Amino acid sequence: MQNVSIIGVGQTRVGERWDRSLRELGGEAVTAALRDAGVERPGALFVGNMLGGVLCKQQNLGALMAEYAGFPGIEAAVVEAACASGGAAFRAAYLAVAAGVCDVAVALGVEKMTDLAIDGVTAGLATAADADYESAQGATFTALNALLMRAYLERHGLARGSLAPFVQAAHHNAVSNPNAMFRYEVDEARYLASPMVADPAGVLDASPVCDGAAAVVLCRGGANGANSGRAIRVLGSGAATDSVGLATRGDPLWFGAVEDSARQAFAQAGLGPHRVDFFELHDAFTIVSALSLEASGFCAAGQGTDFARDEGIQLDGELPISTQGGLKARGHPVGASGLYQIVEAVRQLRGEAGESQVPGCGVGMTQSIGGLATAAYTHILGV
Amino acid sequence: MQNVSIIGVGQTRVGERWDRSLRELGGEAVTAALRDAGVERPGALFVGNMLGGVLCKQQNLGALMAEYAGFPGIEAAVVEAACASGGAAFRAAYLAVAAGVCDVAVALGVEKMTDLAIDGVTAGLATAADADYESAQGATFTALNALLMRAYLERHGLARGSLAPFVQAAHHNAVSNPNAMFRYEVDEARYLASPMVADPAGVLDASPVCDGAAAVVLCRGGANGANSGRAIRVLGSGAATDSVGLATRGDPLWFGAVEDSARQAFAQAGLGPHRVDFFELHDAFTIVSALSLEASGFCAAGQGTDFARDEGIQLDGELPISTQGGLKARGHPVGASGLYQIVEAVRQLRGEAGESQVPGCGVGMTQSIGGLATAAYTHILGV
Repeated sequence: MQNVSIIGVGQTRVGERWDRSLRELGGEAVTAALRDAGVERPGALFVGNMLGGVLCKQQNLGALMAEYAGFPGIEAAVVEAACASGGAAFRAAYLAVAAGVCDVAVALGVEKMTDLAIDGVTAGLATAADADYESAQGATFTALNALLMRAYLERHGLARGSLAPFVQAAHHNAVSNPNAMFRYEVDEARYLASPMVADPAGVLDASPVCDGAAAVVLCRGGANGANSGRAIRVLGSGAATDSVGLATRGDPLWFGAVEDSARQAFAQAGLGPHRVDFFELHDAFTIVSALSLEASGFCAAGQGTDFARDEGIQLDGELPISTQGGLKARGHPVGASGLYQIVEAVRQLRGEAGESQVPGCGVGMTQSIGGLATAAYTHILGV
Repeated sequence: MQNVSIIGVGQTRVGERWDRSLRELGGEAVTAALRDAGVERPGALFVGNMLGGVLCKQQNLGALMAEYAGFPGIEAAVVEAACASGGAAFRAAYLAVAAGVCDVAVALGVEKMTDLAIDGVTAGLATAADADYESAQGATFTALNALLMRAYLERHGLARGSLAPFVQAAHHNAVSNPNAMFRYEVDEARYLASPMVADPAGVLDASPVCDGAAAVVLCRGGANGANSGRAIRVLGSGAATDSVGLATRGDPLWFGAVEDSARQAFAQAGLGPHRVDFFELHDAFTIVSALSLEASGFCAAGQGTDFARDEGIQLDGELPISTQGGLKARGHPVGASGLYQIVEAVRQLRGEAGESQVPGCGVGMTQSIGGLATAAYTHILGV
């Protein structure tokens, strides 16, 4: 496979974007990424989107976005792996360039979730669970995450407050991000006082329903003319799955797909967890953050919350996470989140992260998760 | 890129499969394909599916099908390009193997459309059109195809009966296919007498709403141990898009994406239309068959119906099409159709097509189209 670099990134502001349609959000992100890269017409477009058909009555978004963004005719398709659709679209673009199908490809993640009443969105998100054995029985996605959270706290004898550091770090980092949805601090007392959604998961354990789009431009090779100084290399890419239904897992508190995808990415990059300077993890729920740190190899099973408290996940800690707010505070427009992670990692590695800059970082890791860690895409990027 | 071969195929019977769920259909096709290939566990799975979220409340079908088919853990995702989702999933699997990501990949197309009332299905199919500028104005997919059909007949001064040969050939070839939905002959009189759906498109101009699944196993290289004698090579693969909305096309009667994808596939294969022994085209509507023959280079613009009448599209004609019934008579479970085409082409090239066998064929072409030729995937296969 060819070496592949990221030479451009673009994103929209995340929020209840009633001022923008689905295609307008996607077009804004792609146009910004192409301008950043100095590229006019890519060779292929892969779109990460989960709910276009269910919520916006619009599928066929590959061709639609290619035309709207100004380059009709190129190869374009949607890649879907529930909330990991963004990571899956990035990997599809990476493989297309690595295989030599085209010299330049764009990966776009776009989602519009706030134009419908919330019960429609909840039902839409539940399509990531097992329709026959989970959703049809009334399980929402928040309820399934709450099951994991309760089991985790009970098995390891932890109080709910042990998960507070994940929320605190994400919200703190969002304050300086103009594209983030929730730009305010949250302390442990506020976290603990937040209203319950599905006991023990409260409102502040969950990431918000929102709209947004993010895009990156990938090209073959490492250095490319005018952009050579800012090109970020894709060092490793991993992808794996697990059972969709929680009931068929050996241990619901171990994310096998996360472990497998991280191991693949580390092996390809030729480095281990200790070399990672920051980690854009999939903090859709606080419990997912803890379990992702464990399965990715940053700490042992059951040690996720201790790691967050003792080693430090803040910008000056051992392993900064969610450096620009994460899914929790920047927002989680589901099919777009995997691309927001890549965009934010590139900004870190370029040294363009402003007040959220991780000093002297050279290696960053992103991880896009779909379902209850049913699908996982891990990428390692480097300067 | 590495050479890639198809070493196994599987399919289910097409129809109103109220006896099988979405996952059961997919599992049956994958299991059959793996058995045919003599493979137990592939390295990746790519699922072509358009309407799982909208009609079955089930997305995340990559992981779900990998688990259900007996190989949880592998990389798996859904690829969507409206009715070309099957062709897009095949190309994703092809690129994964060609890029060296894995030695063996499976492409599965699966769709379940008959569990809802037909108005729900019609609305679901309309998500392939432009939601803001077409579907929201009440345009159904049949209505949009009828617009093309009327424009074509008027521009070229043709009677409706000129399209009859496409229906006759497809239905004749379906009679001997035990997996086909409509196993009966249709003559010109019956075609002309069929009830109108959207004038001038009648019931027999359209392919049916139905359920089904088809799968193929791809592997690196050309010959692989026990299967070397039956391996079919992927000679060329092309992918392109066009505008989603008909209104923004220069000429709605020219399928630019079809032309581009066919040209790419011919160039990679190093051969031209005259070398193609049969063509599994996307006969979702009769008008699409005529326009596909023209844009693919088999005849000039406006000559599609003359070509069908004079050159012959029957099994003993110049260019047999829809050799096992096509979308028209085998059935069109949308996300699966692109894989049915590949399965049927492989059966032809292996000489296993029974009463539908094209004698002495060595090169076959398949073409999966999404929307109104918004997305097109053309593949050329050879012995």
